Amino acid sequence: MSETVNRQVLLKSRPVGIPQAEHFEIVERAVAEPGPGQVRVRNLLLSVEPAMRGWVNAIGNYSKPVGVGEVMRSIAAGRVEVSQSDRFAPGDLVTGMFGWQDHAVVDADLVDHKVDVSEHPLSAWLGVLGLNGLTAYFGLTDAGRPKAGETVVVSTAAGAVGSCVGQIAKIKGCRTVGIAGGPVKAALCEQEFRYDAAIDYKAAGFEAALASACPDGVDVYFDNTSGPISDAVMRHLNVGARVVICGTASIANWDPIPAGPRVERHLLVKRAQMRGILVFDYADRYAEGRAVLSAWLRNGQIRHREEILDGIEQAPGAIAGLYRGENLGRRLIRIAD
Amino acid sequence: MSETVNRQVLLKSRPVGIPQAEHFEIVERAVAEPGPGQVRVRNLLLSVEPAMRGWVNAIGNYSKPVGVGEVMRSIAAGRVEVSQSDRFAPGDLVTGMFGWQDHAVVDADLVDHKVDVSEHPLSAWLGVLGLNGLTAYFGLTDAGRPKAGETVVVSTAAGAVGSCVGQIAKIKGCRTVGIAGGPVKAALCEQEFRYDAAIDYKAAGFEAALASACPDGVDVYFDNTSGPISDAVMRHLNVGARVVICGTASIANWDPIPAGPRVERHLLVKRAQMRGILVFDYADRYAEGRAVLSAWLRNGQIRHREEILDGIEQAPGAIAGLYRGENLGRRLIRIAD
Repeated sequence: MSETVNRQVLLKSRPVGIPQAEHFEIVERAVAEPGPGQVRVRNLLLSVEPAMRGWVNAIGNYSKPVGVGEVMRSIAAGRVEVSQSDRFAPGDLVTGMFGWQDHAVVDADLVDHKVDVSEHPLSAWLGVLGLNGLTAYFGLTDAGRPKAGETVVVSTAAGAVGSCVGQIAKIKGCRTVGIAGGPVKAALCEQEFRYDAAIDYKAAGFEAALASACPDGVDVYFDNTSGPISDAVMRHLNVGARVVICGTASIANWDPIPAGPRVERHLLVKRAQMRGILVFDYADRYAEGRAVLSAWLRNGQIRHREEILDGIEQAPGAIAGLYRGENLGRRLIRIAD
Repeated sequence: MSETVNRQVLLKSRPVGIPQAEHFEIVERAVAEPGPGQVRVRNLLLSVEPAMRGWVNAIGNYSKPVGVGEVMRSIAAGRVEVSQSDRFAPGDLVTGMFGWQDHAVVDADLVDHKVDVSEHPLSAWLGVLGLNGLTAYFGLTDAGRPKAGETVVVSTAAGAVGSCVGQIAKIKGCRTVGIAGGPVKAALCEQEFRYDAAIDYKAAGFEAALASACPDGVDVYFDNTSGPISDAVMRHLNVGARVVICGTASIANWDPIPAGPRVERHLLVKRAQMRGILVFDYADRYAEGRAVLSAWLRNGQIRHREEILDGIEQAPGAIAGLYRGENLGRRLIRIAD
């Protein structure tokens, strides 16, 4: 592979619901040169994450949809190759929204930050120390506000965000209950992420298992799924409960909006709240979050798992795989060393 | 009517959904005598309010359901007849949960407060200066947190709580949009309660009227209905919107929970929140709320309407009438002067 060729994964057609491999195509383009104030980054690790579904759907979201024919939006980690900015030098390791491609030319202002790999590997800066960890940290502490002794329930509990939420809640002195799909992930919840209880929602008796795992009800529900899992948890809310809406992984398509049991009566009777969170709203506190997470990671209070695929040709089908639940850790794609 | 007879409205059978006249019966009992620390109150005004539906249904609520054969729970205003407490003297006007009956014997601790009728009539203490006004005040200011220039939408906008919410939001410098059923109530919203816009949800073109009334989206939605009205408002939420769940008047029956469009995606994309409120949670701030509301009422910044029925025999059918939307003001029943 010549370094003058830039392989890019483009959005080929707009999916309804979950994007599949056929919605993308890989093309080869010439590597571009950065202009003044720009840098060129050689991507090393690309991200694959559930939020990408929302980025390519046509319906309303928190950001403009990726255009058909455009490079797929993705956070990535890479090495600065050429710099026309005094903020970065060739060789710097950085993260940012560099897209699914070998080489990205971006304004230096849009680089998230320079990464220090002396203590934590590069991949951690895309996961537990990146947007996943920050989502867990700010979503739980700011919107969930767990107090010691409370019960915190997490859906997609073994996932990149969920596993971090469960461990932070444990650090805060809560009883933690993880909901995950299948016995392998449920075991991971208890053994690796140290939930007090883990429930396989695919197994028979989910409702009874949930009730049994939450004998004192649910004070905080960190929701990554929506759907029937959430419907069950809502029935166990305590007075004053906080429901953090972080993702909707169990809903394949929001256009049209699917029906489910109305939540108003639960919220009224329990004086409970539901609140959507987006990590980007906490951008001015990322340094704080990274410092806290880095310390927890260093002293072993937070563990994380990664699943690294090899080669950019894995990218097109990788989102659908997440929604099938096939990964057992933060999914990344390594495209260079 | 001898004052030794106490007419009481008892719950005769447990309704599913909205209680009708046939779910109650009126009986005559002997008037009881208060014991030490108790008072006997001659009720003058009884309350009829939407929350009563929840008090008599078997499904979970914030208080124990009224038992079959028990006096119907109700806030009321009356005059102390006999006192065995040093806190109240015969002749004092008081409000409290005295029930649908002529005479109530209650512990003095359970009397809400002694009422001063030198400035506002007794009926106001059951409405705009009572739980309705307090619900509006705390629900809007604490959970809704409106800021000047924001758009506040209110459902059951001409009702006892809604009309107060709209006027408080106006005092706070907001654009106010009221949703009510029928042209008479919509006109009342604009002319009496000074909403910037009022929408009759029963008229054709509700969706278009809502969009047109909220050109800058919705920042606060004070919801007393749930159902299709709320589903429409949810589609107009702004980033950071607050939805205050105060009542669910449009849902006749919560057992089983009816289905509606899922809210999670709205909440996530708009980083919005929904929160249920209950006025009793603000009991330690009632004095503050009454002082503020009393001042607004005195200087004409808040107007209110009452609809006073005559005679305790009106009580059994009066709740169903509320849910049919037949009243044009805070519904009370006068049973003595």
